[in-house]
Amino acid sequence: MKIALAQLNHRIGDFEFNTALIRENIARAKAGMADVVVFAELAVSGYPPRDFLEFNDFIDRCQRAVVEISRDCYGIAAIFGCPTRNPAVKGKPLHNTAFFLSEGKIIGRANKSLLPNYDVFDEYRYFEPNRLPYSIIQYKGKRFAITICEDLWNISDDPLYIRNPMEELIRMKPDLIINIAASPFNYDQHRSRTEVLKRNALTYKLPLFYVNHVGGQTELLFDGGSMIIDANGEVVEQLKYFEEDFLVYDLENPSANTLTLVEGSQGEGSIRLIHDALVMGIRDYFHKMGFSKAILGLSGGIDSAVTLVLAVEALGKENVRAILLPSKFSSEHSITDAKELTEKLGIEHEIIPIEDSFQSLRHTLESQFRDLPSDITEENMQARIRAVILMALSNKFGYILLNTSNKSEAAVGYGTLYGDMAGGLAVLGDVYKTQVYELAGYINRKQIIIPENSIRKPPSAELRPDQKDADSLPEYGILDKILYRYIELRRGPNDLISEGFEEATVKRVLKLVNTSEYKRYQTPPILRISPKAFGMGRRMPIVAKYLS
Amino acid sequence: MKIALAQLNHRIGDFEFNTALIRENIARAKAGMADVVVFAELAVSGYPPRDFLEFNDFIDRCQRAVVEISRDCYGIAAIFGCPTRNPAVKGKPLHNTAFFLSEGKIIGRANKSLLPNYDVFDEYRYFEPNRLPYSIIQYKGKRFAITICEDLWNISDDPLYIRNPMEELIRMKPDLIINIAASPFNYDQHRSRTEVLKRNALTYKLPLFYVNHVGGQTELLFDGGSMIIDANGEVVEQLKYFEEDFLVYDLENPSANTLTLVEGSQGEGSIRLIHDALVMGIRDYFHKMGFSKAILGLSGGIDSAVTLVLAVEALGKENVRAILLPSKFSSEHSITDAKELTEKLGIEHEIIPIEDSFQSLRHTLESQFRDLPSDITEENMQARIRAVILMALSNKFGYILLNTSNKSEAAVGYGTLYGDMAGGLAVLGDVYKTQVYELAGYINRKQIIIPENSIRKPPSAELRPDQKDADSLPEYGILDKILYRYIELRRGPNDLISEGFEEATVKRVLKLVNTSEYKRYQTPPILRISPKAFGMGRRMPIVAKYLS
Repeated sequence: MKIALAQLNHRIGDFEFNTALIRENIARAKAGMADVVVFAELAVSGYPPRDFLEFNDFIDRCQRAVVEISRDCYGIAAIFGCPTRNPAVKGKPLHNTAFFLSEGKIIGRANKSLLPNYDVFDEYRYFEPNRLPYSIIQYKGKRFAITICEDLWNISDDPLYIRNPMEELIRMKPDLIINIAASPFNYDQHRSRTEVLKRNALTYKLPLFYVNHVGGQTELLFDGGSMIIDANGEVVEQLKYFEEDFLVYDLENPSANTLTLVEGSQGEGSIRLIHDALVMGIRDYFHKMGFSKAILGLSGGIDSAVTLVLAVEALGKENVRAILLPSKFSSEHSITDAKELTEKLGIEHEIIPIEDSFQSLRHTLESQFRDLPSDITEENMQARIRAVILMALSNKFGYILLNTSNKSEAAVGYGTLYGDMAGGLAVLGDVYKTQVYELAGYINRKQIIIPENSIRKPPSAELRPDQKDADSLPEYGILDKILYRYIELRRGPNDLISEGFEEATVKRVLKLVNTSEYKRYQTPPILRISPKAFGMGRRMPIVAKYLS
Repeated sequence: MKIALAQLNHRIGDFEFNTALIRENIARAKAGMADVVVFAELAVSGYPPRDFLEFNDFIDRCQRAVVEISRDCYGIAAIFGCPTRNPAVKGKPLHNTAFFLSEGKIIGRANKSLLPNYDVFDEYRYFEPNRLPYSIIQYKGKRFAITICEDLWNISDDPLYIRNPMEELIRMKPDLIINIAASPFNYDQHRSRTEVLKRNALTYKLPLFYVNHVGGQTELLFDGGSMIIDANGEVVEQLKYFEEDFLVYDLENPSANTLTLVEGSQGEGSIRLIHDALVMGIRDYFHKMGFSKAILGLSGGIDSAVTLVLAVEALGKENVRAILLPSKFSSEHSITDAKELTEKLGIEHEIIPIEDSFQSLRHTLESQFRDLPSDITEENMQARIRAVILMALSNKFGYILLNTSNKSEAAVGYGTLYGDMAGGLAVLGDVYKTQVYELAGYINRKQIIIPENSIRKPPSAELRPDQKDADSLPEYGILDKILYRYIELRRGPNDLISEGFEEATVKRVLKLVNTSEYKRYQTPPILRISPKAFGMGRRMPIVAKYLS
């Protein structure tokens, strides 16, 4: 038996597109003499469809797409995911279903049992878990155990769910495991995913066929990495990361060698994956939105430099416009560093000074501000004037403004709402400052693209004379460690203090994080590369007193 | 037996405050000779604590608070809600628990079975449902059936959950039902809530004691309305709406008369509730944030007029600063209407024209824009200059900027990001334009406060000569009907067309709604008064093709 894996970039709610894509790949699998072709979870609707699932009309369209796809399923079987209606009177109205189609008919289906409802996942919002006994689907003499993503993940010593689908399925003596998934990237995910899948194959002594989505869905970045694991728990085939891919595998004549897997999350491997994820995220956001051109403000600092390089990789240098917006506090080297970068990249730069507009606004506010001393207000005004200018160019010429804030700043609220926090997409909003340096290092690995001065100089917002980030924040080496423990690991203040961080610093940082929720509420969507990004995956009260 | 109901305004994560508040009310209940005092769901942590629940430290603090409260529970019993750890190995790590404390000890507890995970609710994100058999708690010869909010709501013909706690509890012959709740306001909720509770009392022929939260928690507005229903399904006591309240009720000497309940959702009753909810929402947001002063831009139109009146009611006229920011397209009547309103309210007004700043920014952009004609860019620039000015005043003087956009505008994206969409809190973001008119009518019910001209004139953004909303949008009478059906009722395009709406209009409106997700993503938190508000309760993909 030959099984094809189709790792594709689906589009949410674009039934025409998804149906055509699935049909194309059925044809391709037939051409490759495959008996079965496997697609990802909710391939028909795209993932995540979110509250579109609450529309009857949306579910109707899903059903019609299944009918359409079924017309191609002659001489080949197809396995793919689709939301379906729950026929039971009690429970949520939908199931997250895997269909098994052959000879124009549904010959089997499996409903997802374990519904992730944490971090960025909201599946229990829509779906009723499978509550029925599991069944095996037989096809061409083989017994298929069909599972959907999370169904294979309940294997820790402290399991999140009370049921384990494979424990029940194994009793029915399947010949192989299929897992269709929608498993977004983070810098740990490919490793834990491979471990979980290997452990399943090994525990049940069965070959496992895993198909994931690929492509950016706004903040969620699906990395692909679909794979085949043999009954010894060895990965024998691995599809590409961050690209569509397709493979036909012969069960009777299996690949013998174990593959070299994608590198781990330590060192360059991880930074390369983060880099590739961000590039894909930018590209897909723009293309799926129907835009091709980006604009951003270039400060001479490292964040906007890295963002610019990623944007150029994603969209092409002809599609990225870099604007220098110096104020009177901008240092000379900021302008030369920014210029140097645009020259390296071979793109034009434009300089639009903000001083006149700033003075005009100050003048407008003279009778309100009188003799009050300059403070954070004037700093914010400058940041906001830059946003007005960038958004004006964006509106006039049809660019999307890229936000260049990093995760460390977003965490502690070191940014101006409607100023440097503006943009259609936040490229580095899930990348800590110390990781931004690593990205810069990765970008410069073969030749210097980002000027060394942008990397070496002390970070500064340059909104008042001689300002440095270090004036208001702990140095990033310490700050990022505290933030990572608080945000990613959910360690409380006492844990942090007992780990050796200074009490005053811990309290100050945690208070900054908690009292900045109101700012992050209005942040653009952030490309997610960590296990805990700001946005849908981290839901905090804006008004709360805990640790603030 | 005397049972006290304590309807309180808890604070999320403020354990010191909540513990003191609960202890105060235990003392008050003792003074009133009560045998039992009942508090709301998750009273100890405040509701909703969201992802703070993922912090071990947060759960530890909850536990410590229970110990502290237990010290006051002598000579009286207390029932209140608190998150607790799930002792089982399998399943989510927490339960949503009701404690029954007496003589310093926990004499009983009930874990919530039915966990709402729709609209604004995410309870399955954190909690494992109760999977054990239910039990009755006996105290002073009475048998208590303890339930938590949603536990009583699974009574429709198409139930959302497969279990029904009261069906199991009733077999143990309880004497009364307790329901502790966190049930936020919407203009339908008080009616459906009363119906559900009555139906439970009537079905099980038991008196029912219901305690809800009161107060604003950012966007969620808890209206209180705690009540006692007798075994005949009649409401015999009802606590206040939108205010803290307290009552001691004698089971052996019950109230005889049925109360006149709060008015229904039709007509003035509904608008009055919406009005009261918004005023409470503003007040609590500011006070819980530690702010007292608001600023807003006053355009002479109805939205900012209504927002100003609500802010003055919530914060006091001395705490609200109204700024007129005319452009050269502002009509004379806009300025006089705005002035007239501030005079009626007895507050100062200030005029800060934006023309100079606008011209200065245009000048700055001259070499980019050259001879390109004016378009939406210049309209947005004006809106954004206003935001820069309002935010500058907000930063300099410590105001929170109130956003004045209505739900109809937010729905179709008729607003400028970082311009009129800016603010710390959106007061009318869940109020359709046609409801804003009703609110204005309600505000003017005794005397004209909002100038009739602001109400009568055709809505206009006044960002170009002779602009009217009706130039770009269907008239609000039609638009709001389509929006309500699409947003609140989740009707698809075919449903709407078959209801008689013009096909072209339907398609245009739905497309506008769907392609404006990227703007709403960056909207301030919106006070929620409907069953489907933008924000946490409506989760849509930003990039999707369905109906766009």
